[in-house]
Amino acid sequence: MSANIFGERFKLISFGESHGPAYGVVIEGMPSNIPIDEKLLIQNMQRRRPGQGDHTTGRQEHDLPEILSGVFEGKSLGTPITVIVRNSDQRSGDYDQIKLNPRIGHADDVWKNKFDHVDHRGGGRSSGRETLCRVIAGSFAQMIFKSALLKTEVTAFAEQIGPHKLTQATELPEDIKSFLSTAKLEGESYGGIVKCRIKNAPQNLGQPIFHKLKADLAAGMMGLGAVEGFEFGAGFASAGIKGSDFHSVSDSENYGGIRGGISTGGEITFRIAFKPTASITDVAKKGRHDPCIIPRALPVVEAMTWCILADHLLWIRTDK
Amino acid sequence: MSANIFGERFKLISFGESHGPAYGVVIEGMPSNIPIDEKLLIQNMQRRRPGQGDHTTGRQEHDLPEILSGVFEGKSLGTPITVIVRNSDQRSGDYDQIKLNPRIGHADDVWKNKFDHVDHRGGGRSSGRETLCRVIAGSFAQMIFKSALLKTEVTAFAEQIGPHKLTQATELPEDIKSFLSTAKLEGESYGGIVKCRIKNAPQNLGQPIFHKLKADLAAGMMGLGAVEGFEFGAGFASAGIKGSDFHSVSDSENYGGIRGGISTGGEITFRIAFKPTASITDVAKKGRHDPCIIPRALPVVEAMTWCILADHLLWIRTDK
Amino acid sequence: MSANIFGERFKLISFGESHGPAYGVVIEGMPSNIPIDEKLLIQNMQRRRPGQGDHTTGRQEHDLPEILSGVFEGKSLGTPITVIVRNSDQRSGDYDQIKLNPRIGHADDVWKNKFDHVDHRGGGRSSGRETLCRVIAGSFAQMIFKSALLKTEVTAFAEQIGPHKLTQATELPEDIKSFLSTAKLEGESYGGIVKCRIKNAPQNLGQPIFHKLKADLAAGMMGLGAVEGFEFGAGFASAGIKGSDFHSVSDSENYGGIRGGISTGGEITFRIAFKPTASITDVAKKGRHDPCIIPRALPVVEAMTWCILADHLLWIRTDK
Amino acid sequence: MSANIFGERFKLISFGESHGPAYGVVIEGMPSNIPIDEKLLIQNMQRRRPGQGDHTTGRQEHDLPEILSGVFEGKSLGTPITVIVRNSDQRSGDYDQIKLNPRIGHADDVWKNKFDHVDHRGGGRSSGRETLCRVIAGSFAQMIFKSALLKTEVTAFAEQIGPHKLTQATELPEDIKSFLSTAKLEGESYGGIVKCRIKNAPQNLGQPIFHKLKADLAAGMMGLGAVEGFEFGAGFASAGIKGSDFHSVSDSENYGGIRGGISTGGEITFRIAFKPTASITDVAKKGRHDPCIIPRALPVVEAMTWCILADHLLWIRTDK
Repeated sequence: MSANIFGERFKLISFGESHGPAYGVVIEGMPSNIPIDEKLLIQNMQRRRPGQGDHTTGRQEHDLPEILSGVFEGKSLGTPITVIVRNSDQRSGDYDQIKLNPRIGHADDVWKNKFDHVDHRGGGRSSGRETLCRVIAGSFAQMIFKSALLKTEVTAFAEQIGPHKLTQATELPEDIKSFLSTAKLEGESYGGIVKCRIKNAPQNLGQPIFHKLKADLAAGMMGLGAVEGFEFGAGFASAGIKGSDFHSVSDSENYGGIRGGISTGGEITFRIAFKPTASITDVAKKGRHDPCIIPRALPVVEAMTWCILADHLLWIRTDK
Repeated sequence: MSANIFGERFKLISFGESHGPAYGVVIEGMPSNIPIDEKLLIQNMQRRRPGQGDHTTGRQEHDLPEILSGVFEGKSLGTPITVIVRNSDQRSGDYDQIKLNPRIGHADDVWKNKFDHVDHRGGGRSSGRETLCRVIAGSFAQMIFKSALLKTEVTAFAEQIGPHKLTQATELPEDIKSFLSTAKLEGESYGGIVKCRIKNAPQNLGQPIFHKLKADLAAGMMGLGAVEGFEFGAGFASAGIKGSDFHSVSDSENYGGIRGGISTGGEITFRIAFKPTASITDVAKKGRHDPCIIPRALPVVEAMTWCILADHLLWIRTDK
Repeated sequence: MSANIFGERFKLISFGESHGPAYGVVIEGMPSNIPIDEKLLIQNMQRRRPGQGDHTTGRQEHDLPEILSGVFEGKSLGTPITVIVRNSDQRSGDYDQIKLNPRIGHADDVWKNKFDHVDHRGGGRSSGRETLCRVIAGSFAQMIFKSALLKTEVTAFAEQIGPHKLTQATELPEDIKSFLSTAKLEGESYGGIVKCRIKNAPQNLGQPIFHKLKADLAAGMMGLGAVEGFEFGAGFASAGIKGSDFHSVSDSENYGGIRGGISTGGEITFRIAFKPTASITDVAKKGRHDPCIIPRALPVVEAMTWCILADHLLWIRTDK
Repeated sequence: MSANIFGERFKLISFGESHGPAYGVVIEGMPSNIPIDEKLLIQNMQRRRPGQGDHTTGRQEHDLPEILSGVFEGKSLGTPITVIVRNSDQRSGDYDQIKLNPRIGHADDVWKNKFDHVDHRGGGRSSGRETLCRVIAGSFAQMIFKSALLKTEVTAFAEQIGPHKLTQATELPEDIKSFLSTAKLEGESYGGIVKCRIKNAPQNLGQPIFHKLKADLAAGMMGLGAVEGFEFGAGFASAGIKGSDFHSVSDSENYGGIRGGISTGGEITFRIAFKPTASITDVAKKGRHDPCIIPRALPVVEAMTWCILADHLLWIRTDK
């Protein structure tokens, strides 16, 4: 297997299993001399953390990151940055029955078929906890932008939770929280839609043929566990619009800030559809999973976005 | 720039500008001893060809492929396969005014900004004609499946043309053809939706973390010029479905034949949204472009799908 | 910087600085279901360990490896394998003066110039201790061969230590040991020549154009710190031999078991020249470095060889 | 097979078989706006051309390059540059007996064994004619340096032809020419040693761990057909030198202009050993091959050097 590396210039190498000793990430391509903002790192990781309310999973993750390499006296060395997080709360007993009965909607059986050998405990490598690695990498990517004094902002919102539309919420309103608490009690689960806005992205990010910015964003988002759809700009709605209407409005609205695969400097917007989490019924309750992945997905979407932006920010240095 | 290579095990390297001497593709990773089906190659290329009716562009492309390397006595050598197609119909005079007035909705100005130097004639490298390279590569990918006696089928349908829904049409019905002919006369353009079905895909295609089959398909499709959205299985609709309903139906329907990023053996389905083509108004008419890209996009969607499937078919040989 | 990844199918990602918290390696591409032989791992690491005699550096490295991911119930999962080793013996005080006075023959100033920021303590990332990562990765590569019941053997010998020729010694004879002990006392250092023999290598390893087996071996060996030369088969001597003589003997002797870049099944032999270690004079003694790197280089040479062999063993699965 | 791509930032993709329609190269990563010097290209190609005297092969190669993509109005576009050369002089009849009797010292049988299908005519893909692709790519790499007004010079010399030492000859002296003419008549062949000097290389080229400049140079040179050895700086001789002597002289002499894997700005020197060409006896005479590859290898060595230098020149743009 060789598919745990993401990116071309700014590369993240993700490793770890849910009930193994640790998760971690190696970042290859971090330029030297970037100030390391550990507060930002912790902050981003905490937003992804479960156990923040009874509408999310009960698993307690303390998630203390340890930087093993690449940083010295508060700045990056230009060498690989490695960060690990120990898996402390491993009640693997809860997962014993999974070995016998693969969970509906999970990938346990698929992995077993593919690799003939699988760590069944809590999804092993396929656990959502792997997204921790992406949040860590995204934080370092974000530091590159900060260091360059770019005013780029990346914000992911919940736009829909199950059947309920929201007004670009970075935090869930109370009625949605209690909707999810009920769902949790009932062993029910919901998907949703996340919208992400990138403000003040530099121009020229993206390559014209195969690493179009929209294609890399799509690959990054569709690489998240429960994601079933990706659209940017006018998205699926663009199919039904007349060309004379579509192309008459200002750049950013319909084009989503990307033209010819390349950022135009306008606001970049994209939307991502998540299916309902697979952990429902009795097993789910014991497995302490989320009734809806959206709240915890927001920082992960932002992190992958930062990684992709950083990749292309370094890439344009060799364009001309 | 370094973004003209697609794939990990089965790699296609695309080159060429619209009004340069030729387009072409190098295929790296074609196993040896695969029978080369030139008829299939020509057939796929002809489906992509413009000038097939007055609802498509008037540019005549004869598109005779020339195989420059990698094939001997009708079989692949295991060396890079190179195929070129000469650009014969180059009325670059038509494009002279573009140099002065970048076309609305095109990427001429974006490229200029990024590279400081651009071949403005007919879009240069950003021309839709580049998809020729993908159709060629896809044909060779398809030959790998044929040679392995796999019964895999890939079929792309037009599901929507502008505001009109169709019933999975591989060829356009007459009323849609005349709808597009009218649009062409009026300098109007439309987008649409393409649905792609993969039948009898082998199990185990896809990697679990970053090269999930769905992520690679998304990257491949979002890497096409006018694509604004990608969804597979239940797609965006999955956001509003209860988990207990979503996960109760048979595998292929909602999951779209992929679970945990890996093909399950069930039918794989995905949908792609195209925005209206950018070539409208006077310039467009002279530029001889399509009022709707969908009919010619079908073989391109299939080709990219074949490339991705072949990539993963080779990849699983090193899984265990 | 993006140059800490080695290999195409079997990839090792090395990280860590000499006086940072830990060294480590991520292995991408390890097939699933390979039995993990921890004894072999420890054994290989101990051969590389310093402090084994007064002719080597006095730094005590306990080098206890911790497997963080990729292994479950004694077998590989097909997910990335990560192993770290803590840096326990960090007398960084000894290195303080280096900050002011870059050491002769070391790369401290070169790194400083390149990255503007460098961990000067003990060479930082450029320390010889980084080879630990390669020994770990090589051990896992070796396990793939064992698991496949291949009888491949890789053995590196000291053929020359400074001016003294040896008879293919895996352990140093007493007179050489005392020669080096004297050198250590005097702050003197020596290079040497290592010969490596690969017995029972499978046929067909290597690719014909750019990843010829000999080219990958050269890249691997020249990627070691003090290596100044690489030759295989008849090597530099082949320049003076008549073709009719050179090509008249059996395959393995002059060709070194590789023809057209590809292993023939015959014994593969190559030789590597090491320059004298750079740590001499007062600083060196305090820095506790080796008077000669050869004894500790043997397991490192073997490890890189195993990595390259494993890379190509996986690679040939997609040849035809 | 996937080993026809060389380089990380400046990539060359080589294709073609000796008796197929054409050889060619795609260059990925050429920055935009570089003036294209076709005269330099032709000049470099002519130096590599055979048929320049009766001491080289009688095959007439006209080698007219055709640029298919990536260049517009005399400057690079930032898109892939593709150059092909038709194979015009294909007397494949001469090679018919090879099918039955693989030639001694050639790789015909090795390729056959690996790929089960091989173009036996004139070595097919393994022909020395493939180096044409490298000379083309190297010329474009050289243009990057010229465009940046860097005064870098790369010169390869013949230092030894068979048993005869030369004084850094870019052209062979008369006595050596007649020595080789005699060898040709007798069906004899010789190897030799090439020395390459890089003057005025920028500092900071090379990466510290796996893409050390010396390792990339070694991989590039050992990737040439008949090369059996590579050394830089003091090379194999460094093994016998005392550290106090080795490290006392100025940087460039023993270190060969590279320290810690990175160029220091001093002159970089390396030497390459070629074995005698394999084409001897009757078959060879008919096959019209060289008695010694050295004269024609010089521009190839220079070309690979330029490619590697360009790769690292682009690479350092993302170091800090």
